Amino acid sequence: MARVGLLAGCSEDSGRLTRRFGTPALADAGELVSDWMRAAGMTVRRDAIGNVIGRIEGAEPGAPALLLGSHLDTVPDAGRYDGALGVLAAIAVVERLREAAGRLPFALEVVAFADEEGSRFGTAFLGSSVLAGSFDRVALARLDADGVSLEDAIRGFGGDPAALDGAGREAGSLVGYAELHIEQGPVLEELGLPLGVVSGIAGQTRAALRFTGRPGHAGTVPMELRRDALAAAAQTVGEVEAVARHTPGLVATVGDVSVSPGVANVIPGQADLVLDVRHPEDADRHWAVALLRRRAGEIASARGVECAWEPLHEQAAVRCDPGLTGRMWQAVQDVGAEPHALASGAGHDAATMAAITPVTMLFVRCAGGVSHHPGESVSEADVAVGVDALTRFVELVAERLSKGTVTS
Amino acid sequence: MARVGLLAGCSEDSGRLTRRFGTPALADAGELVSDWMRAAGMTVRRDAIGNVIGRIEGAEPGAPALLLGSHLDTVPDAGRYDGALGVLAAIAVVERLREAAGRLPFALEVVAFADEEGSRFGTAFLGSSVLAGSFDRVALARLDADGVSLEDAIRGFGGDPAALDGAGREAGSLVGYAELHIEQGPVLEELGLPLGVVSGIAGQTRAALRFTGRPGHAGTVPMELRRDALAAAAQTVGEVEAVARHTPGLVATVGDVSVSPGVANVIPGQADLVLDVRHPEDADRHWAVALLRRRAGEIASARGVECAWEPLHEQAAVRCDPGLTGRMWQAVQDVGAEPHALASGAGHDAATMAAITPVTMLFVRCAGGVSHHPGESVSEADVAVGVDALTRFVELVAERLSKGTVTS
Repeated sequence: MARVGLLAGCSEDSGRLTRRFGTPALADAGELVSDWMRAAGMTVRRDAIGNVIGRIEGAEPGAPALLLGSHLDTVPDAGRYDGALGVLAAIAVVERLREAAGRLPFALEVVAFADEEGSRFGTAFLGSSVLAGSFDRVALARLDADGVSLEDAIRGFGGDPAALDGAGREAGSLVGYAELHIEQGPVLEELGLPLGVVSGIAGQTRAALRFTGRPGHAGTVPMELRRDALAAAAQTVGEVEAVARHTPGLVATVGDVSVSPGVANVIPGQADLVLDVRHPEDADRHWAVALLRRRAGEIASARGVECAWEPLHEQAAVRCDPGLTGRMWQAVQDVGAEPHALASGAGHDAATMAAITPVTMLFVRCAGGVSHHPGESVSEADVAVGVDALTRFVELVAERLSKGTVTS
Repeated sequence: MARVGLLAGCSEDSGRLTRRFGTPALADAGELVSDWMRAAGMTVRRDAIGNVIGRIEGAEPGAPALLLGSHLDTVPDAGRYDGALGVLAAIAVVERLREAAGRLPFALEVVAFADEEGSRFGTAFLGSSVLAGSFDRVALARLDADGVSLEDAIRGFGGDPAALDGAGREAGSLVGYAELHIEQGPVLEELGLPLGVVSGIAGQTRAALRFTGRPGHAGTVPMELRRDALAAAAQTVGEVEAVARHTPGLVATVGDVSVSPGVANVIPGQADLVLDVRHPEDADRHWAVALLRRRAGEIASARGVECAWEPLHEQAAVRCDPGLTGRMWQAVQDVGAEPHALASGAGHDAATMAAITPVTMLFVRCAGGVSHHPGESVSEADVAVGVDALTRFVELVAERLSKGTVTS
């Protein structure tokens, strides 16, 4: 918990926590984490995008690794546990197992991903996509709010844009990936349980919608002659909410909007929305996205406004590996907690990693389900039992692997 | 027209015209205008907020002045005629009357106001409010997008915040105020007429609406538990449009919106709108504003969201002075054009000046009614007849004043 506080001190802003990809704040956090990894007996490297990766060998040097970890970046004005807690818990597990590590049938690795939230470039999972070999080079041209490209940001962060394609892990080099994370929802708190075992991660679609109308003077253009881009965008926001409310399991959010020119006495000629749609079943999500895309187009064309839809990010729903997740279930029981199975509405690096290795996740109860907010809070007792369970999980995977295979 | 081009070169941005209050671009434009005023035989001064004022004496030095002018600031990505044309036409009138000026029963003054659009500080008519003695010192604390206060911007522009109160003109020092401006609407073009004589200026209300909900994770908070500030704001945008469409003569516009934290995976906790409402009759406008304020509150509270309403600017509808406007009507006829009476849906410095002196306005036809946009366009022939009419107007006012009084 002391380390959580030290990491929270690495921020772009004074008085609040903001730690986006490629910033000095993230570099500072990476240095702290590297120091703690080394102190735990790990060798440390940074990959082409700036993910920090520590490794401690098992019984056979060079053996495949069981990878533990989470991400170090945050949303603006964030809480201190989202991401960071998973990295620190993983290091704590290595510290506890340091003496035993040399007898394990796998190496232990801890990864601190450099970008999961996508707060700076409007994309997500940049860090884990590099490890998973699924990084999309098209994203390199994306610009942040200051006009800096992702490519330049990677270079400025000490990374190597040219090496991104080759930075993916061979599937054979990994036993699996396990991530501890705060729940970011209210379920465990309602049940009075400290830990949740994750059954799967909802798929998500992210898209940028640009409405282009005709700017005009706010005082002289009669209402019936307007082609107001914001009016079309606002109606679409209402439609997003309505479709989500009427589709069980669906959540849909417009998290950002901006208009141009954006002054009081000019009818907006352009309005941009960022849309996020999630559902545990891919088919339900695909249908909802198709419906929203059609409705946005209809709303726009009825107003003489253009609507362009740019896909930003698509993440298929992921089921956690039954073999690894069975071990996580047992580990929670073994440390004296009652396990509870739940799905994750939030995306996680585990979803990206699932493309190349079996994954499992452990949720830790958080107060009020609050996340992405300074009010984010977990109890020290819950963190302790979470680290106990993750440690026990590693031991159980080792036992099972010695007998054969653990993943399904 | 050559001077219009030179002024358009004074911009904050390369490749487009943006000239907001207090910027080096506006200072450059003020220098050009000062030079042209001096070349026309005027003495030039800058007042406490940076309005540029040229004066040429009439028959009796120190006599009250007939004031001509408009504003030099622009909206972002503006056209080149809004404001600037009125300043340049006024200087052209002085050039034509320079020889005759010493026989006029009044001084001629030309004013180039430093802020009319309010693009930088979200308020309007700052320049004319200083001349009219109605500047509101509360505005000094307002911040621009970079966190610079209006007070500091005035100081940085060579103005004197402490002297703003004393910079108002004595009513007795003015004969009246006449402003030439592009129409910013399609009426004259439809009628095939170059000039319009303005009957009055619509009143306007500007307000900032802040919706405060509860931020949350876009993937984990079910739709029914959300308090989404943007959803409330978007519904209010729809209501603004609906009320305006159903109220004859009313125009209502949301020209800007911003959300916080403004990232794709966070439900917006706060959303800000800027609202602009106009109507030629004050009572109709007041009723519409009251209705919109109540509806915004209802929309918010039905969603568990707070709505704060901050009045930004209030401008009563203004009728142009019948005496001066009769002379403008006659002047248009005298130069061979057919006058047409029309109301202005756009606000103008003339509306602020009406509080201390009789005002009149002359509109020049513009292409497609386009304004506040790079596509703003007027013909050289229309400008020529406009300057002819404004010159003739000054002569007619002088003739009438010699016989008694011209204003009503």
